[in-house]
Amino acid sequence: MIAPIFIGVDIGGTSVRAARFDGYTHTPTTKTKAPTLAAKGVETVLERVEKSIREVAPPNLAGVAGVGVIAPGPLDPFLGVVLAAPNLPGWANTPVKKILEERLSVPVFLGNDANLAALAEWKFGAARGHHDVLYLTISTGIGGGLISRGEMLLGARGLSLEVGHILAVPDGPLCGCGQRGHLEAVASGTAIGRNAQARLKAGDGDNSKIWELAGGELDKVTGALVGEAALAGDEFAQGFITEAGRFIGRALADFLHLFNPSIVVCGGGVSLLGDILFNPMREAVRKYAMNEFYWKNVPIVPAALGDDAGLVGAGALVMEEAGSKAEEAI
Amino acid sequence: MIAPIFIGVDIGGTSVRAARFDGYTHTPTTKTKAPTLAAKGVETVLERVEKSIREVAPPNLAGVAGVGVIAPGPLDPFLGVVLAAPNLPGWANTPVKKILEERLSVPVFLGNDANLAALAEWKFGAARGHHDVLYLTISTGIGGGLISRGEMLLGARGLSLEVGHILAVPDGPLCGCGQRGHLEAVASGTAIGRNAQARLKAGDGDNSKIWELAGGELDKVTGALVGEAALAGDEFAQGFITEAGRFIGRALADFLHLFNPSIVVCGGGVSLLGDILFNPMREAVRKYAMNEFYWKNVPIVPAALGDDAGLVGAGALVMEEAGSKAEEAI
Repeated sequence: MIAPIFIGVDIGGTSVRAARFDGYTHTPTTKTKAPTLAAKGVETVLERVEKSIREVAPPNLAGVAGVGVIAPGPLDPFLGVVLAAPNLPGWANTPVKKILEERLSVPVFLGNDANLAALAEWKFGAARGHHDVLYLTISTGIGGGLISRGEMLLGARGLSLEVGHILAVPDGPLCGCGQRGHLEAVASGTAIGRNAQARLKAGDGDNSKIWELAGGELDKVTGALVGEAALAGDEFAQGFITEAGRFIGRALADFLHLFNPSIVVCGGGVSLLGDILFNPMREAVRKYAMNEFYWKNVPIVPAALGDDAGLVGAGALVMEEAGSKAEEAI
Repeated sequence: MIAPIFIGVDIGGTSVRAARFDGYTHTPTTKTKAPTLAAKGVETVLERVEKSIREVAPPNLAGVAGVGVIAPGPLDPFLGVVLAAPNLPGWANTPVKKILEERLSVPVFLGNDANLAALAEWKFGAARGHHDVLYLTISTGIGGGLISRGEMLLGARGLSLEVGHILAVPDGPLCGCGQRGHLEAVASGTAIGRNAQARLKAGDGDNSKIWELAGGELDKVTGALVGEAALAGDEFAQGFITEAGRFIGRALADFLHLFNPSIVVCGGGVSLLGDILFNPMREAVRKYAMNEFYWKNVPIVPAALGDDAGLVGAGALVMEEAGSKAEEAI
């Protein structure tokens, strides 16, 4: 029996990536990456997506069971339509599934990056064997996904699970979404960078390694750079990560009350900081949870799949949606 | 074919209620109610529960497909065990399902009141025909339940969906659970009563109808009484309901971002205040939602089943869990 071939594609703001999976695996056989050229419009990007898929797939997509696509969001995964896309001009209401299916003649499935990373961590990563998984990605933004009794929670239009857009600080800092005080606005990598800039500008942290790493230029201070200084032992920098960890942990207590998962997995760039982030996060969970039923025996762990989680998730989506059909056909 | 008989029981802090449903209906054939006598301990209450069930059921429980029980919580609905019960002394770790099944020789299923009210509103009430339903009960406390793609969201141990215990006001008023600033602590009937007491004590609302209804006694001011004054047109009283509605609406925006339901149903005593509560709630949802995808075409409506929702839900639980088996056996 020949294993079905699954293709995963990630349409990002800066690059389009594609990977081929031979059978039910998270190890790609081959991968490709090209600039998105979002400014050139939808058609250019879609041509690039098609080209990337054909690059990793066998000629004429022979043996390909389907394609999973991480598309810009918010999107409707049931209809396969991008509803809006702040980072990609002209994409509102684009029926990506329909367009690609017509061009490729194989089934195409859409998902958002955080949901698909959650799917990947559940099927192949840190949450394997669990049935109720909360996944958070802490990066320039904060997103997430929930597996409940072995099913992805998508909501009526597939717009779940915007964990970054819940209120953390009433009337707090402006969020990318236009609201104020959301978790993403106080605890994402972007927020960490902005908080550090503000404190440095105010004259604090004279001796911080952040200045050195930024070459003395305030506007070069980013969350990534604060993280680098924190990992190098800079206490001033660590303070910003601790603060973010506390906000995330306090929100996690709410999420535990709502979702009652058996494991929490944290991915994204900020999560790579390890204990500097996870310790204050875990402490805050215990402090703010209403009782131990919610956190006892509920590990809060780093993601296992790294940067590829989304792409693996796009593959996992099509393994789930088209996999069994492909095997029946074979 | 004889319709299977389903029994619903509600073990409340003050009374034990039981209802009999002949077939898949939300209209009980007969009901009964007796004091819980919680202070006399678990065994007394369980005997009362058994007696109530036998009162509404046919002799020897002939034709009874099963019993659904609203038990004090938090509880594990999968194991049928009460984990803790602040209002009912001695109930921690009581295997209610096992005990009642041994005594009754029919299948018994446990659920918490808010989840079962959600189930009832979905199967028989305001959310019929929807697949993604968020239900809130706004009463002395605030609870809820979520139906996602036609399944109740329970979480790993069945402890979902504690919507009243999410942070609304950091470092805010003390919540019944021991944490501070939870939604329940600022927007429940209890909070409304407490807020009114504080303002009256401070000398505000001299001419409010609340004084009249309370017979001039500050400690007789409750949420229910504030609601009564608000319904009678008292503006001072209405202010407290508006405030609660705004808090609930702001939290609802978070819930829409997380759950993306197609309908929101609000039950519980406070919801009976109608527009006085619902208008500020709906306004806050629109103000705090990150975009219209989350609230457009998502009605926010009052519950349809009233006080019986929980009991009907207990019946609905056993209709779901034991119904088809019973029919196969018949």
